[in-house]
Amino acid sequence: MAATPDDSVGAFIPGPRAALAGAAGGPLAGLGCAVKDLFDVAGHVTTYGNPDWGRSHGVAAATAPVVTSLLQAGADLKGKTKTVELAYGLTGENVWHGTPINPAAPDRFPGGSSCGSATAVAAGLVDFALGSDTGGSVRIPASYCGVFGIRPSWGAVNLAGACALGPSYDTCGWFAREAAVLARVGQVLLPVDTCGGGGFGLGPLLKVGDAWINADPGTARALGAGLAAAEGLLGRALPVELAPEGLATLYEHFRCAQAEEAWATLGGWIERTGPEFGPGVKERFAAAKAMDPGKAAAGRAFRRLFAVRMRSLLAGGAVLAYPTSPNPAPRLGISLEAQNAVREATMGVTAIAGLAGLAEVTLPLGRVEGAPVGLSLVAAPGRDRLLLALAVQVAQAMGLA
Amino acid sequence: MAATPDDSVGAFIPGPRAALAGAAGGPLAGLGCAVKDLFDVAGHVTTYGNPDWGRSHGVAAATAPVVTSLLQAGADLKGKTKTVELAYGLTGENVWHGTPINPAAPDRFPGGSSCGSATAVAAGLVDFALGSDTGGSVRIPASYCGVFGIRPSWGAVNLAGACALGPSYDTCGWFAREAAVLARVGQVLLPVDTCGGGGFGLGPLLKVGDAWINADPGTARALGAGLAAAEGLLGRALPVELAPEGLATLYEHFRCAQAEEAWATLGGWIERTGPEFGPGVKERFAAAKAMDPGKAAAGRAFRRLFAVRMRSLLAGGAVLAYPTSPNPAPRLGISLEAQNAVREATMGVTAIAGLAGLAEVTLPLGRVEGAPVGLSLVAAPGRDRLLLALAVQVAQAMGLA
Repeated sequence: MAATPDDSVGAFIPGPRAALAGAAGGPLAGLGCAVKDLFDVAGHVTTYGNPDWGRSHGVAAATAPVVTSLLQAGADLKGKTKTVELAYGLTGENVWHGTPINPAAPDRFPGGSSCGSATAVAAGLVDFALGSDTGGSVRIPASYCGVFGIRPSWGAVNLAGACALGPSYDTCGWFAREAAVLARVGQVLLPVDTCGGGGFGLGPLLKVGDAWINADPGTARALGAGLAAAEGLLGRALPVELAPEGLATLYEHFRCAQAEEAWATLGGWIERTGPEFGPGVKERFAAAKAMDPGKAAAGRAFRRLFAVRMRSLLAGGAVLAYPTSPNPAPRLGISLEAQNAVREATMGVTAIAGLAGLAEVTLPLGRVEGAPVGLSLVAAPGRDRLLLALAVQVAQAMGLA
Repeated sequence: MAATPDDSVGAFIPGPRAALAGAAGGPLAGLGCAVKDLFDVAGHVTTYGNPDWGRSHGVAAATAPVVTSLLQAGADLKGKTKTVELAYGLTGENVWHGTPINPAAPDRFPGGSSCGSATAVAAGLVDFALGSDTGGSVRIPASYCGVFGIRPSWGAVNLAGACALGPSYDTCGWFAREAAVLARVGQVLLPVDTCGGGGFGLGPLLKVGDAWINADPGTARALGAGLAAAEGLLGRALPVELAPEGLATLYEHFRCAQAEEAWATLGGWIERTGPEFGPGVKERFAAAKAMDPGKAAAGRAFRRLFAVRMRSLLAGGAVLAYPTSPNPAPRLGISLEAQNAVREATMGVTAIAGLAGLAEVTLPLGRVEGAPVGLSLVAAPGRDRLLLALAVQVAQAMGLA
């Protein structure tokens, strides 16, 4: 889709912008923002990335509370950004609205599903942007586009007025070019940390061996300095393997349980409406419809145990560290098979926070062949603000503003 | 030292027994016990394993509260057991009182310093016995003699009326042939668990790679079934490395900081009295006296960080699993150099709980060339009772009464 003069990368959805001035003088005053086009803004159609969704849902009557919070805090809304159709995909492709250009690597995918928000931030069109993250939809485009991103603890940020994909996994996250801005938005949107035990703050740092081995060697190497910076703050990282059953097993359980939930959430509308989907999305919803209930139940059962395992491991303040994505953004035009292979390797890692509802921040601390890769720091639910403060310190230690 | 008819392994200190009947009908009624000869029993000399200590201290005026607790709970005291001189050694050798025979492997050391208590329990002379553990003095003889043993959280059990070696490391522990008896004694001596956060109980299980690699291959193999039994209760163990700086570094910091404390505690008496010490003990106190204050300070500084690291890692209920000792008991008569090598490999592991004040239970779940080795389960301070309950379940799963 052709870029407009004030949208150099095609980040915004085509058509009239949903633009609103923020309150004067709030904590986000002076910051411009955008929101993924699955958050309602009163008077505008929410497309959820799909024209048939927009047509069948019409103009939103109310603004999502999270957007209202941003406006009340002084941020100016500059528009709504592109998303993979129904947020069900990680490349960032959208055949209806056009795939945004990744400003950090124009020959590569921007990552999705929050592709427009990530590219709008990376291109400097706005200071921060809201996305949503069910299975990686903030973390992956942040890693691919070289910006900061957060997937907060599940349930920490209000998702009323936002389209759902898998409600027990969905989170409202955001992107920023500066760690300090990422943290400032957190001061507005996040509840006060509820971290329980010990009063230890954060630490120790746990280097998740499974995820580092899963990453391609160049990505792992590129993030070594970032890991060292985190170690400078939290002490030498302890190597740990989180998934003796294999990351592929995590992905499989996530995929099955989440697909069942996606179909339960969106299948009714799909069956009633018979929407047209672009390639990839169509096949994934077909697979979701056909999901074996036994596999989905096994996924849900695994999830319960895995969540307990992770939450107790992190209850005292431990922080996981691993490459957000196992590789930089794949190049545009790779085959669907190659995309699927990347997806599997990626979601074995994103499933860690996804299954357990953990807080994850990704920091743009590496480059591979010129393309960005992110380092993730992950904490137990309820430590989002501490985690953002840690991200600011790590970014400073790495010489980022 | 010649065994007497009712002391088949030479576990008790020579001379008249400190024997006292317990109260009728308490929770430990019907159980016979012994206490390491560093706990005071009114009217008896506490030798601390060294004749000069006994001579210079004379008859104890009061009974240690922990011993009184056992008597009031109904246990019968059968006598006081041998200890390495001033509890400063891990082989269990005592040239003055005679080294007790390891009933499970008579050609091997019993382990120390609580050698008499471990062998009295292993030989069936008593149902349980008190020891003390500063750097491994319950855990190692328990592993070597094939009995259950606990080193409780630091500070959990009253050490008044017990001779000190390193007060910030010293703990009162005990031995039993049955996990259920180990736990029953805990119900009497331990405070109610103070475990904080989350309400998760225990888990996940963390397989401490450093310690498994540090163990000889036969020991690691022999404990595989025990680990699997624990996994059956807590789920698949996550592999973790606790000491990227190396277990040898842990040992070195422990050794330096603890030696300084040992000299601060006992140096005055040694200088005033000029006691005769057996081989090994003499050299260790000479080294303690000569300890470089800079090294001791570095050890103390490391300890603070390591303790925070371990406590936050375990705050949510995680349980460490590793071989208690890296090998079965060394054979009697090996050289002092060989003993020192075993000591170094052993104390790199025992230092984990020692430095961080953790609760550790050792279970007699393996045999190597016929000699016992123990599996340790280790939890955050304040979870001693939960840990004992877990040990009972693991023992049951392994077919032990």
